Amino acid sequence: MTDIAPVLASADRNLQASLDRLFELVKIRSISTDPAFKADCRKAAEWLVAELTALGFDASIRDTPGHPMVVAHHAAVSENAPHALFYGHYDVQPVDPLNLWEDDPFEPAIKERDGRQVITGRGTSDDKGQLLTFLEACRAYKDVHGGLPLCITILFEGEEESGSPSLKPFLSANAAELKADYALVCDTGMWDKDTPAIAAALRGLVGEEIVVKAADRDLHSGLYGGAAANPILILSKILAGLHDDTGHITLPGFYDGVEETPSNIKAAWETLGRDAESFLGEIGLSIPSGEKGRSVLELTWARPTAEINGIIGGYTGDGFKTVIAAQASAKISFRLVGHQEPAKIRESFRAYVRSKIPADCTVEFHEHGGSPAIQLSYDSPVLTKAKNALSDEWPKPAIVIGMGGSIPIVGDFQKMLGMDSLLVGFGLTDDRIHSPNEKYDLQSFHKGIRSWVRILDALAA
Amino acid sequence: MTDIAPVLASADRNLQASLDRLFELVKIRSISTDPAFKADCRKAAEWLVAELTALGFDASIRDTPGHPMVVAHHAAVSENAPHALFYGHYDVQPVDPLNLWEDDPFEPAIKERDGRQVITGRGTSDDKGQLLTFLEACRAYKDVHGGLPLCITILFEGEEESGSPSLKPFLSANAAELKADYALVCDTGMWDKDTPAIAAALRGLVGEEIVVKAADRDLHSGLYGGAAANPILILSKILAGLHDDTGHITLPGFYDGVEETPSNIKAAWETLGRDAESFLGEIGLSIPSGEKGRSVLELTWARPTAEINGIIGGYTGDGFKTVIAAQASAKISFRLVGHQEPAKIRESFRAYVRSKIPADCTVEFHEHGGSPAIQLSYDSPVLTKAKNALSDEWPKPAIVIGMGGSIPIVGDFQKMLGMDSLLVGFGLTDDRIHSPNEKYDLQSFHKGIRSWVRILDALAA
Repeated sequence: MTDIAPVLASADRNLQASLDRLFELVKIRSISTDPAFKADCRKAAEWLVAELTALGFDASIRDTPGHPMVVAHHAAVSENAPHALFYGHYDVQPVDPLNLWEDDPFEPAIKERDGRQVITGRGTSDDKGQLLTFLEACRAYKDVHGGLPLCITILFEGEEESGSPSLKPFLSANAAELKADYALVCDTGMWDKDTPAIAAALRGLVGEEIVVKAADRDLHSGLYGGAAANPILILSKILAGLHDDTGHITLPGFYDGVEETPSNIKAAWETLGRDAESFLGEIGLSIPSGEKGRSVLELTWARPTAEINGIIGGYTGDGFKTVIAAQASAKISFRLVGHQEPAKIRESFRAYVRSKIPADCTVEFHEHGGSPAIQLSYDSPVLTKAKNALSDEWPKPAIVIGMGGSIPIVGDFQKMLGMDSLLVGFGLTDDRIHSPNEKYDLQSFHKGIRSWVRILDALAA
Repeated sequence: MTDIAPVLASADRNLQASLDRLFELVKIRSISTDPAFKADCRKAAEWLVAELTALGFDASIRDTPGHPMVVAHHAAVSENAPHALFYGHYDVQPVDPLNLWEDDPFEPAIKERDGRQVITGRGTSDDKGQLLTFLEACRAYKDVHGGLPLCITILFEGEEESGSPSLKPFLSANAAELKADYALVCDTGMWDKDTPAIAAALRGLVGEEIVVKAADRDLHSGLYGGAAANPILILSKILAGLHDDTGHITLPGFYDGVEETPSNIKAAWETLGRDAESFLGEIGLSIPSGEKGRSVLELTWARPTAEINGIIGGYTGDGFKTVIAAQASAKISFRLVGHQEPAKIRESFRAYVRSKIPADCTVEFHEHGGSPAIQLSYDSPVLTKAKNALSDEWPKPAIVIGMGGSIPIVGDFQKMLGMDSLLVGFGLTDDRIHSPNEKYDLQSFHKGIRSWVRILDALAA
């Protein structure tokens, strides 16, 4: 480790210039999902290439069938330094409905909100402000030391908010160039405004739609009720049988690959004060519904689920119709953890469903995506170094958390480039990403830059 | 009994005149549900009053808030003769889509179809042809004997195809005038073209809609899945628990008032050749789904059911959405038999549902109708006389059957006027009532008239 005090001082001293650069980037209307903003997306990519080049990176635009990627490389001061790939995205969500914005989404400003200084505007938190924390940290480092402590490759995507259609082909075609020792991903949040967080467990997903078919037409329930198979009833029995009375999922082999969370991690989660009352109270509930004897954080971060996301069959309009439907369907998703295998879960589910279908009825399956969980080490050297670095910067120690949903890029890096990710970000839950009045706390930006200074330094050691 | 041979001969001799009258009535476009045909409905009622008056009835139009009723009275030749109320309806279903009709629906004609002579046109079977079989039988009787063997009151309704909104108030306001020893209802069908049928068991109905509510908003299944209650899952468990593995319905007290069908009736049903293969084969199924060990006719005519008629919750569009819905709802109906009480069934169901709702969730109930089953005696003197009379007329003996659905008028007569009904009709399953190309077999009309001659005579004895 070097003496980072002067680097932090440089970051502090140049904060206004850093903000000026963020404002420039936020003003570019890089809404990736709307073709009307195609040129703006390119402009944002070009702006980043210019900034990276000025910073001494070997940076270039890389065209894709959609919006371009930005790739840049910078050597480390030491030949033996680790090599990190930093990922962020320069595209933003649409801004409708515009009338709900208190400020112009593309005219960023510093405002006071709830007693805090915030930077207003679309993309300030997701993800322009976040990716710039890293670039400004690099700038401060070079400003003081003339170089970077790590070998750094940058990958900025312009389609994250529109499904990343070009990402996998691009990773595949440029694997050798993009492969590093690990990835740094800055697109997540803090636990709270004083407590930094590193996400280490991301649940995977298996989506399935099933269509149960019985008679070859809708039937009158007076004429046929009691003798003809009712697909809604069959479907209900299938869905009701997915869990036993303790909330355990009954599919054979379902828990293969599920590991218990280390007790020290669970103990750390217990200290967060996020109990059932607070977690469920916000949504009008009070009783954890899943497996018994586990905290809500464990249930949502580290345990697998079987959820029904939609169901439809028969007559669903106003009033009543005495019909026995010809078919009924449901959308079911499984959240996966640890090393559960999506293909095996899907096959176990399908075998279970088939076993519940009467011989004169049929079932159709439609696959809706499948990705394994990401289970990063809770105590790898990289994670431990970053955790300590974050703890040095913020009022409270950093915690390692899980996330209920998945971040596809992390799985892609693992699968296609064979590298784990370190997920560090400075967003807050009240940042209103994807909504009107998005903001990024000034503290998130400022201390975010300082955090990356500390992490870069720690990772080089 | 009188000598009915000359009466039957009169009916035969005057068949063409009877058909001419039917054609006149079918030509009147009395579509009750469409306000554009309001005057036509009145014209049909006036036509019937004129015909009844010509037949010697004391007949009149009775205005209602909707289409008018026709009421008529005729004394019997003998003062001690029984008093029967004959019910039919002069209104018909709409004729859309008109382009599917092979003949003009309001220009009746005799055609050959599938080797049989049929009368084409809207309402020929439902119910103009049927109600005229009775009037023409009265005409033949009077033609020969100068009077009628029973005291007869006629009630013709003009709103049967549009929900009968005026019927109950009319029965209530005119109960004394309409009360008879029993009702004769001619709006049902034969078992097959050679086998007349009398319906004696009509299932009742309890309709319920339940709305299960969990969180106060839709949730992201990644963030909350595994901890937050899923209303679709709760609903599935409720519905799946309605039946045990033998198809028995589990609600406490559900079978109170259910009686076993007499073994001689069940034996008669066995002779009809309507087994699971033929009954279910027509709709693409093969395995009876309800209570084990009972025939499909018993299951649909004489056993109660719990059916789910509709279900909806969460995301049901194309693709997938990882949502945990705030609520889910289902429409459930129970078919009742014997003396099951709708109010008790509803309360037992609601208590069961409430017992399955987690303490932090809620359920709403919406009532959708309730009517008890109609269980007429399988061997009353009236039924036995009619059965023998029908057996004398047709190639095969008459059978007493059940019906899976309800005919509300029969319940109204029982409840409001304290009289049972005899349900005799000559429709065939291929009459296409409510559909394009409705027809009534010429044999149904001709032998229908002859059947009523025999029944009237038998009932007078």
